[in-house]
Amino acid sequence: MEDREKKIEEIKRDFPIFQSGRFFYLDNAATTQKPHCVMEAMKQYYETENANPLRGLYELSLKATEAYERARVSVQKFLNAKSPEEIIFVRNASEGLNLVAQSYGRAFLKEGDEVLITIMEHHSNLIPWQQVAKEKGAKLTFLEPNEEGLITLESFKQALNDKVKIVAMAEVSNVLGNRQDIETFVKLTHEKNAIFVCDGAQSVPHRKVDVQEMDVDFLAFSGHKVYGPMGIGAVYGKKELLEKMPPFLFGGEMIEYVTKEDATWAELPHKFEAGTVNVGGAVGLAAAIHYVEKLGFSFIEEREKELSVYLMEGMREIPHVHILGSEKGENHHGIMTFTVDGVHPHDIAEIMDSHKVCIRAGHHCAQPLMKFLGTPSTSRVSLGLYNTKEDVDAFLATLKTIRGAMGYGE
Amino acid sequence: MEDREKKIEEIKRDFPIFQSGRFFYLDNAATTQKPHCVMEAMKQYYETENANPLRGLYELSLKATEAYERARVSVQKFLNAKSPEEIIFVRNASEGLNLVAQSYGRAFLKEGDEVLITIMEHHSNLIPWQQVAKEKGAKLTFLEPNEEGLITLESFKQALNDKVKIVAMAEVSNVLGNRQDIETFVKLTHEKNAIFVCDGAQSVPHRKVDVQEMDVDFLAFSGHKVYGPMGIGAVYGKKELLEKMPPFLFGGEMIEYVTKEDATWAELPHKFEAGTVNVGGAVGLAAAIHYVEKLGFSFIEEREKELSVYLMEGMREIPHVHILGSEKGENHHGIMTFTVDGVHPHDIAEIMDSHKVCIRAGHHCAQPLMKFLGTPSTSRVSLGLYNTKEDVDAFLATLKTIRGAMGYGE
Repeated sequence: MEDREKKIEEIKRDFPIFQSGRFFYLDNAATTQKPHCVMEAMKQYYETENANPLRGLYELSLKATEAYERARVSVQKFLNAKSPEEIIFVRNASEGLNLVAQSYGRAFLKEGDEVLITIMEHHSNLIPWQQVAKEKGAKLTFLEPNEEGLITLESFKQALNDKVKIVAMAEVSNVLGNRQDIETFVKLTHEKNAIFVCDGAQSVPHRKVDVQEMDVDFLAFSGHKVYGPMGIGAVYGKKELLEKMPPFLFGGEMIEYVTKEDATWAELPHKFEAGTVNVGGAVGLAAAIHYVEKLGFSFIEEREKELSVYLMEGMREIPHVHILGSEKGENHHGIMTFTVDGVHPHDIAEIMDSHKVCIRAGHHCAQPLMKFLGTPSTSRVSLGLYNTKEDVDAFLATLKTIRGAMGYGE
Repeated sequence: MEDREKKIEEIKRDFPIFQSGRFFYLDNAATTQKPHCVMEAMKQYYETENANPLRGLYELSLKATEAYERARVSVQKFLNAKSPEEIIFVRNASEGLNLVAQSYGRAFLKEGDEVLITIMEHHSNLIPWQQVAKEKGAKLTFLEPNEEGLITLESFKQALNDKVKIVAMAEVSNVLGNRQDIETFVKLTHEKNAIFVCDGAQSVPHRKVDVQEMDVDFLAFSGHKVYGPMGIGAVYGKKELLEKMPPFLFGGEMIEYVTKEDATWAELPHKFEAGTVNVGGAVGLAAAIHYVEKLGFSFIEEREKELSVYLMEGMREIPHVHILGSEKGENHHGIMTFTVDGVHPHDIAEIMDSHKVCIRAGHHCAQPLMKFLGTPSTSRVSLGLYNTKEDVDAFLATLKTIRGAMGYGE
């Protein structure tokens, strides 16, 4: 562990925010910090290549177009999509999932159809389906996890009846941190001629996501959770599906021909990107992806597992602390959601803050899961690639003092 | 003019891209260049305050929340909206107009209703209305401009029948550059109990837009056209309207309470901002707004008028060049769309490019207007606050050579 720890300390120096003061950032499932190269790439773009891309006939606009389409290829390779046209730039994973629900769902769901999701979904992979199901007279059905946070093969098979047309599931839960057996579920889904929509927001930053290997039909993620800037993300979709879907938003760049009465649509991927695109954001996201790829997921995964195990062992030694989901740290993708007997999660987060430890408290945008687990809110600590043993130690040291600080004499 | 010219040369030095090489950027209606302070503000945010805002209970997240809401107040004051809740951050003007059409339009348009727009609208203020009208069985009706590019009071009154529930109009046309008499049209619209949706994409960068004075119900603009970063913009909406509208996108942060079956929505403005918001972009936009406000619109308008008049006089002296719209340069808000007899607009843009002059050619995302004007495509030169006489001279010098370069002996 010691050798790796040194490498992490070096990595941490790539992130300027950690030079701005002493604090322990453990809220990476909410958003991540950005390496210097991300800000630098955006600055470089705005200072040397900025123009409105795609339609310009002058050098600067061609440069902007190249920068944008190069960023798309970076995302394509990152997810191992077959072609760049299968990558649609969106604002964040939420928008990507809305795009799929509102475009695919509205076009192809019929009365009596079912959309199968899990009780663990983030609101972004739940409410868009509630809305489209309501509109189309379709039904939303829910899978519930076992104690490990896993959807079992048995329960999946049972729920997957012939009415199910769409299965929507997060690869990694933003509360329990465990990964579902996506590959198996996708296979079964396709056997029923349904499609599989994957929320990759919490998996893409932590493991090599290969959309061809997983064979998912759609997968969305946020740039800001994978060390890129805010306001940019992507949704992957299989070309044959994207081609038959209507556009999501309407405006410039996404049309082929427009009359007073109607319009025809541009080719993929532009059909889904209305208005001036976010070249600066896409360039920043590409820089983040290159940074992550340079470190490599084999390093990132191994390190995060090691630190997760260390974190969990530390937490389990502290009385009155309860961790949700798997008992094995390595199954958590750096996400540990927990409760402390008799202490409100908001108080935990505030005490942590007074010790410069940044963690999250609340419903984590997953209220139905909270209800299922029987707790309205919890605390969550989550790791990123720059987190050191020192960060975890600061968290654990504070966690030990929580009940004392709240007046429980122990 | 000479004094001002010197000030503009100083201003131009605030924009790093102009140090990256010698070129004449005259495509400002498509996108603008960014002053140093915009990149610096974003960098500063990511390097010292970055966290997921709105839900965090630790210092960094509170800082991010403050940065974001401060940016909203900057936009509110910039547009003179009554309250910050009336400002919704979106990706760009196109998304803002889609939000209004899909949320307000879908909720309140009924079969037989009419949406009154102009033949001059940018596709972003046309196709969203086509789509929602088609869906709801409503009708789209079109106003046509006079030779000056203006909608006359007479034609407006004639078209505004009792069936009209929504009027949607650009304040300044992105092709003809002229400003419509919005205040009068809004008054008449309200007398019919209809609402007025304004596309501010081409006005907000050029004049003081005061939504209370104009009394528009909605107004959208893009940050990147007003010297801010790409991927951020805003839509203003009157509180009483926004309050009764359903959300546009669904996900984190925009909910109050979520069950398996349904959800209730957060208060304004969060109801309309699903998923992690773009703090970095909002901060960059606020920096751009402060930059513009420091120069002041009285200076910017006067200067752009002066340069527009100079530009138009120069163009009118060149044989075979025809300018669309008003004959008065000061009416053009820096936008001059033109044709050259016998030369395709794409050739014009390419010849311009070979002389380092950046202008646009095409349908300018306004195909119905092009059809109305009887030309499939045109060239457009457009000014920004940093443009010098030298930029205009470079354009005029090249314009003089265009027909010669295409083999017309004159």
